[in-house]
Amino acid sequence: MSVTHPAGFRAGGVAAGLKSSGGLDLALVVNDGPSSASASVFTANRCIANPVIWSKEVVKDGVVRAVVLNSGGANCYTGPDGFQTTHAVAEQVAQGLGIGAGDVVVCSTGLIGLTNPRENLLAGVDSVLPRLDADGGEDAAHAIMTTDHVSKQVVVEGATNTGGSWSIGGMAKGAGMLAPQLATMLVVLTTDADVDAATCDHALRTATRVTFDRLDSDGCMSTNDTVTLLASGASGAKPSFEEFSGALVRACSELAMQLLADAEGSDHEIAITTVNAASEDDAVAVGRSVARSNLFKAAVFGKDPNWGRVLASIGTTDAAFDPGDLDVAMNGVWVCRASTPAEDPALVDLSDRRVTVTIDLKAGDALATVWTNDLTHAYVHENSAYSS
Amino acid sequence: MSVTHPAGFRAGGVAAGLKSSGGLDLALVVNDGPSSASASVFTANRCIANPVIWSKEVVKDGVVRAVVLNSGGANCYTGPDGFQTTHAVAEQVAQGLGIGAGDVVVCSTGLIGLTNPRENLLAGVDSVLPRLDADGGEDAAHAIMTTDHVSKQVVVEGATNTGGSWSIGGMAKGAGMLAPQLATMLVVLTTDADVDAATCDHALRTATRVTFDRLDSDGCMSTNDTVTLLASGASGAKPSFEEFSGALVRACSELAMQLLADAEGSDHEIAITTVNAASEDDAVAVGRSVARSNLFKAAVFGKDPNWGRVLASIGTTDAAFDPGDLDVAMNGVWVCRASTPAEDPALVDLSDRRVTVTIDLKAGDALATVWTNDLTHAYVHENSAYSS
Repeated sequence: MSVTHPAGFRAGGVAAGLKSSGGLDLALVVNDGPSSASASVFTANRCIANPVIWSKEVVKDGVVRAVVLNSGGANCYTGPDGFQTTHAVAEQVAQGLGIGAGDVVVCSTGLIGLTNPRENLLAGVDSVLPRLDADGGEDAAHAIMTTDHVSKQVVVEGATNTGGSWSIGGMAKGAGMLAPQLATMLVVLTTDADVDAATCDHALRTATRVTFDRLDSDGCMSTNDTVTLLASGASGAKPSFEEFSGALVRACSELAMQLLADAEGSDHEIAITTVNAASEDDAVAVGRSVARSNLFKAAVFGKDPNWGRVLASIGTTDAAFDPGDLDVAMNGVWVCRASTPAEDPALVDLSDRRVTVTIDLKAGDALATVWTNDLTHAYVHENSAYSS
Repeated sequence: MSVTHPAGFRAGGVAAGLKSSGGLDLALVVNDGPSSASASVFTANRCIANPVIWSKEVVKDGVVRAVVLNSGGANCYTGPDGFQTTHAVAEQVAQGLGIGAGDVVVCSTGLIGLTNPRENLLAGVDSVLPRLDADGGEDAAHAIMTTDHVSKQVVVEGATNTGGSWSIGGMAKGAGMLAPQLATMLVVLTTDADVDAATCDHALRTATRVTFDRLDSDGCMSTNDTVTLLASGASGAKPSFEEFSGALVRACSELAMQLLADAEGSDHEIAITTVNAASEDDAVAVGRSVARSNLFKAAVFGKDPNWGRVLASIGTTDAAFDPGDLDVAMNGVWVCRASTPAEDPALVDLSDRRVTVTIDLKAGDALATVWTNDLTHAYVHENSAYSS
């Protein structure tokens, strides 16, 4: 499972004393090559954490040999001293592996505004280096958990027409734009396919655009989100872009659904699909507006198929549609036709965790799905009591 | 108090059987002139209720002689039949007063997607007409309450340099962009100043821009919001624009603060003031982004001065600022300087209902305040159990 499934990767996870629980809190993933092609995407937030400031520089040349990740502290809004901590961790990893610090991505997650203890991080790096193993993915996936209830891992086997097998592995933590508790989404993806950095970049942006970017649990954007793809080329297989990109979308989609299922405090996973939109952008804008309606999300928590709140959210967008001719279905029941009541809302059973909302804009042939969670007492509780 | 304080107005409120409680649920405010100058602003939502569709046409000529309002049903997403109900109510009022239906603004509030019983509304109009009184403002203010705990009323006395006294009265219900439960904000303002329709319009837009438009309790935009200003000219006093506009800002500000104080489920009123912004738009954008952060709002509910969530929200805007040089104070304690921890957050006492957040963007000399409420268990409860 996880990031060590593809050939050419070692990983490990140790307890560095960052988490008060004493659990695993530092992970290292190393690409042993022969290739070290890479691509990354980061949070769009302008106020970003020190590891993101560092890693954005590291990834520019398309070469990454290692990713070091810690939970127990986000190293965000901690100033120049915090940046030096990130730098020191990268140097420690580089020294241990005999590589350059400029090839080491650093990711941190946990509370923001608190300084990470540098000595713990450096000792953790020393401790994880001798434990790096081709079966270490499981430990690494556990070491990046914060408030996650389960670790998130994925493996997708690649099929290449021209022969040769390859695979993609991945691990994720937290919630990203799902963001309960502003928990950062950290994702490391690995592959032994022989793909260059430009292919990695194109495929990664294609995949995140339709997966992680369409998770919107509470509209809050993290300061630390990082998704990094490492390609070792160790399988020798050279998939086409379509083959590789398709597999990467499946891997990211699977991890995104695991994040959605584990979103803290959530009772429901809500898939909002907007159909017959004039453009994909319109469909995403409409879906996102509904996903960000506290009123609608609270209604789903209360098992109330309140389609009026869906229409009220749609009306705040500038997507193309006729306000008098919108159709809305919940769990397949068309409770609203032509912006007026249609089938009986009592037919909508919201007792299951999974809920679908379908919005027909009647304005074109584009569609998109945005995923969110409901707004629950547990969400308020966990986010009102987090740092105190 | 209220809308009948200025000379030239009568009002009344009756129980028309729209509310299951049997309480007052239909109000009528009549301008007896001599002038019937008027101005209105409506929700920016594109999916609007039938009374808003009707009233937008009515107000176009700047002449309004009566406003009829009902609670107990929003008449929203109810199709052509719902529009005919609104039209019939306006006609009934017009017939009773001997005026044209095209001079009657109609406002409705309550659940959306449900048809209002037309016969109750028409009987209610017949019942309120003989009760219209120059002391009827109090009843009218009560008849438009839905989930409001108290009625909202205001009187501002006008001082005119050139002599002559005049005043502004007002009543409000609900929550507008505050929108707990998508409760509509309905506001009727009256004045006996002699001001023409163009002056009314300019003054009303000036006032709502810095008051009601900067309330943002939960980011949800109602389908029925209506603010109407009626000027009778009965005092004969002709204030300057500055005099009238200043008084109208005070009246709207007072009503807005009453709405904020009564926002359902709220434990805190949060005033977010952004200073040293490059523009007022930037200051509003930054304030609104913080006001819409569920994470920040839940933290305030938990009495947690979580300034990291403030910075993370600021970072989602495109306002002018240096992400590494932001200052944030909560209740006057500068917990963040230059985007790093400063004064001890433990010094911030969040036990009081009123909370101030000050954000220094260091990018100019503009400022603005946005008001919001915290995100509480009660908010989730009330909005998950509303229509069921």
